[in-house]
Amino acid sequence: MNTKVFAYDTTLRDGSQAQGVSFSVEDKLRIVRKLDELGIAYIEAGNPGSNPKDLEFFRRLGELNLQHAKITAFGSTCKVGANPAEDGQLASLLGANTPAVAIFGKTWDYHVTAILRTTLDENLRMIRETIAFLKAQGKEVIFDAEHFFDGYKANPDYALQALAAAVEGGADNLALCDTNGGSFPDEIFAITQTVVARFPGVSVGIHCHNDCELAVANSVRAVQAGATHVQGTINGIGERCGNANLCAIIPNLQLKLGCEVIPPANMQTLTTLARFVSEVANMEHNDKAAYVGGDAFAHKGGMHVDAVHKNPISYEHITPDTVGNARKILMSEVAGRATILGKINEIDPTLTKDSPETKTIIERLKELEHEGYQFESAESSFELLVRKMLGKFTPSFELREFKVVVTEPSGNGINSSAMLKIHVNGEDEITAADGDGPVNALDKALRKALDRFYPELRKVKLTDYKVRVLDSSQASAAKVRVLIESTDSESSWTTIGVSTDVIDASWRALVDAVEYKLAKS
Amino acid sequence: MNTKVFAYDTTLRDGSQAQGVSFSVEDKLRIVRKLDELGIAYIEAGNPGSNPKDLEFFRRLGELNLQHAKITAFGSTCKVGANPAEDGQLASLLGANTPAVAIFGKTWDYHVTAILRTTLDENLRMIRETIAFLKAQGKEVIFDAEHFFDGYKANPDYALQALAAAVEGGADNLALCDTNGGSFPDEIFAITQTVVARFPGVSVGIHCHNDCELAVANSVRAVQAGATHVQGTINGIGERCGNANLCAIIPNLQLKLGCEVIPPANMQTLTTLARFVSEVANMEHNDKAAYVGGDAFAHKGGMHVDAVHKNPISYEHITPDTVGNARKILMSEVAGRATILGKINEIDPTLTKDSPETKTIIERLKELEHEGYQFESAESSFELLVRKMLGKFTPSFELREFKVVVTEPSGNGINSSAMLKIHVNGEDEITAADGDGPVNALDKALRKALDRFYPELRKVKLTDYKVRVLDSSQASAAKVRVLIESTDSESSWTTIGVSTDVIDASWRALVDAVEYKLAKS
Repeated sequence: MNTKVFAYDTTLRDGSQAQGVSFSVEDKLRIVRKLDELGIAYIEAGNPGSNPKDLEFFRRLGELNLQHAKITAFGSTCKVGANPAEDGQLASLLGANTPAVAIFGKTWDYHVTAILRTTLDENLRMIRETIAFLKAQGKEVIFDAEHFFDGYKANPDYALQALAAAVEGGADNLALCDTNGGSFPDEIFAITQTVVARFPGVSVGIHCHNDCELAVANSVRAVQAGATHVQGTINGIGERCGNANLCAIIPNLQLKLGCEVIPPANMQTLTTLARFVSEVANMEHNDKAAYVGGDAFAHKGGMHVDAVHKNPISYEHITPDTVGNARKILMSEVAGRATILGKINEIDPTLTKDSPETKTIIERLKELEHEGYQFESAESSFELLVRKMLGKFTPSFELREFKVVVTEPSGNGINSSAMLKIHVNGEDEITAADGDGPVNALDKALRKALDRFYPELRKVKLTDYKVRVLDSSQASAAKVRVLIESTDSESSWTTIGVSTDVIDASWRALVDAVEYKLAKS
Repeated sequence: MNTKVFAYDTTLRDGSQAQGVSFSVEDKLRIVRKLDELGIAYIEAGNPGSNPKDLEFFRRLGELNLQHAKITAFGSTCKVGANPAEDGQLASLLGANTPAVAIFGKTWDYHVTAILRTTLDENLRMIRETIAFLKAQGKEVIFDAEHFFDGYKANPDYALQALAAAVEGGADNLALCDTNGGSFPDEIFAITQTVVARFPGVSVGIHCHNDCELAVANSVRAVQAGATHVQGTINGIGERCGNANLCAIIPNLQLKLGCEVIPPANMQTLTTLARFVSEVANMEHNDKAAYVGGDAFAHKGGMHVDAVHKNPISYEHITPDTVGNARKILMSEVAGRATILGKINEIDPTLTKDSPETKTIIERLKELEHEGYQFESAESSFELLVRKMLGKFTPSFELREFKVVVTEPSGNGINSSAMLKIHVNGEDEITAADGDGPVNALDKALRKALDRFYPELRKVKLTDYKVRVLDSSQASAAKVRVLIESTDSESSWTTIGVSTDVIDASWRALVDAVEYKLAKS
């Protein structure tokens, strides 16, 4: 096993094949900049032959002045019977003007004869001549050996001949692809070892897919077998079940196996980068993700929490700040007084665990949790609660009355509207709004009513709204918990409301969302 | 490697430690029934010692008449210095009256001295005597060796002594736990092999967590090293990054390695089961999940699609129907036309897959799924849809109008009421009701209005009500999906409604709940 390993990111190429993912040129430039800052060695940025609008992106990449990363353009071998020098797709690839290029070719005999519909020898010629042509243009060439593991299992001789053709053409790296994602760690290890031994002096890469939930393990095992390039994507995005997840592979290799993949100081930026890519891809960040998920270091049970406080190694495989993540002790009675006191001290540093105020707050917290509140995901509501109980809160408005009306059928189907009357600074304000459903109507009416008193609320948007039925066996009389996430584009905060009435629960969370913003301004 | 492998499901115990997961007794019973139908060998159903309300659940498990699964209750060794026969927690464990029990104990010397704060010998006594006590009560005993891999790496002699104590006590199975989720496939393989060789005649289990995104690989490698029990959860739910995912492990072992884990015919129900558990847990089903995700067999690139049509093996590691999944995301396709035709034939046995009616129904199903409907968990609504489209449905009533009013504050806080006017058999009926929230008020008003026309509805109760926000980034204007479960004490049925308005979505599900009952009577 080599300890120097190159991370090869294909978020912008293979990753963008995922359903629902589509990056603008500006998005791609931002992602490239962040990947470079992390210390990724190769960034496979797109396929200029299949996507001519990528050419603008490749042109603008020159502006970035990257520190670590080699930009790589992706294409395929020349067509059956064709001369690489006359292949338009290869011309586009060269037109991208990158230091490195990756080209994929067939290594599974079945694919050559049944899908490509040519002879096994012609496929070898295509690989060899395409790579030789690109090498003659001064490129570093990565050969993506498509379906290599399936091909090797079906016909090892031919799969190795295909790699040999790439090496004859001058390939710098043989990237072994488990294209269908069906291979197992022991197979990957053994086959990679064979390839490494067969082609000394040529670096070997690994490219896995997660169809058996084994992509991270397969990538790690390939490195343990001698591969030095690891292909993958941030958060494992990619088609079907995704590509191998670099956010797990990089810390696995570097923190657990002692490999050098990125500059050690950058490891602490991994969580931020992962969240950034989720955001740009407009995907919900996976809370359960290894290393970089919001719950990756969350502790619930009291015993675990005590033990982690005594010594993190007792229930944590690494300390969370190593990857820029944080321990999350759930804000509940099991979290222990120390955690809650920390929150209280942010508002009043003079209180101790024995202060009567502290005890009263903890009692109140327990009562609310029994009613269905859950403050671990709504710390802003908890902060407001503490402020109120310490007399450090002045409401920005008083509710006089609201009335929400839902009628069916109206002229255009269902119609929801809200009338709202509030009292602010000695004045009454009454207003109404309609909306997509009763909560939306109420939200709009509240903003409308507050607008002239608190113009700073204009920047605030609701970004997330979650409803959960707490005791669903009580059916439609069950309690509901509503969580609302808001942002003013600088920060975001989450508030909570619980009630047997979804409107009432939503109203409580809406009021907290507004009050929290006003308390902070 | 043994080819007979026992699946050990801990969704209801370790899985329910995950943030946001909380199952009602009714939920748990439904999950147990489905796990048994799949062919799971052991179902770890809860921890009766830590959660006294679980006793009702364990009592009711007796009603289920399970075919495959042994119900297992979970607890821990006796306390330091204590006699197992006098331990209240062990008494609760026995009170659960299950054929098998699992108890966890310490095997990492550091945990014994620093967290448990006792001597290494006392810990061995606790393990040995607790297991001997449980064996004397006639239980099958699984010893959950907490932190076994970390313990073995720190002090292999002591970790093996702890297992030896369990074997001396009479343990039937040694479940090796990677509690912190930090171990790697090669380590798991080598250490499991050592344990298997050391304790011939005792079966060995594996219990992994996904903190390095390696839990599935680690579990598979342990089986390859000789383990015969595989612990995990459906969809990998569990605290932090989750438990090992049985929905990947079971097909990996059975389809790829030739193990016998569940009856072969049941493999086709895996995707449905996985979706069912997501729905009951009120979690979004992971589209990217291996084998059972909605995107697991989705193809984007045209070339891939063509090749897959030529021959599935070209870009698929298995054919999707092997696990009850399908090449597209929609449930219509997931269930397969055969399944849908089966439903249609229940209503009209003369239709075939080529009938124009069948095609029209499938088209409509696809449209509704694009709108956010999901019929796997709401087959009663699907049946009504089919009846409507085949002209085999007469509505029991027509809605003339409803109006729901929510006011705050009234004399006693928030007040919700509903006025409803319907038309039945040539007569109008107008009524009103108030309730705990607008949906409950509407539900009560509808029952009141229908009462004199359809007295059989008096037996019907709503037993479950779930709300899911479909596109939470649209905040309070997002679409919501409502699922309502009803029962008449003989059978139960689930109906669905989708709308941007929670009241409207609930109304649709309520109407289906009533119509389904009346169509059946």
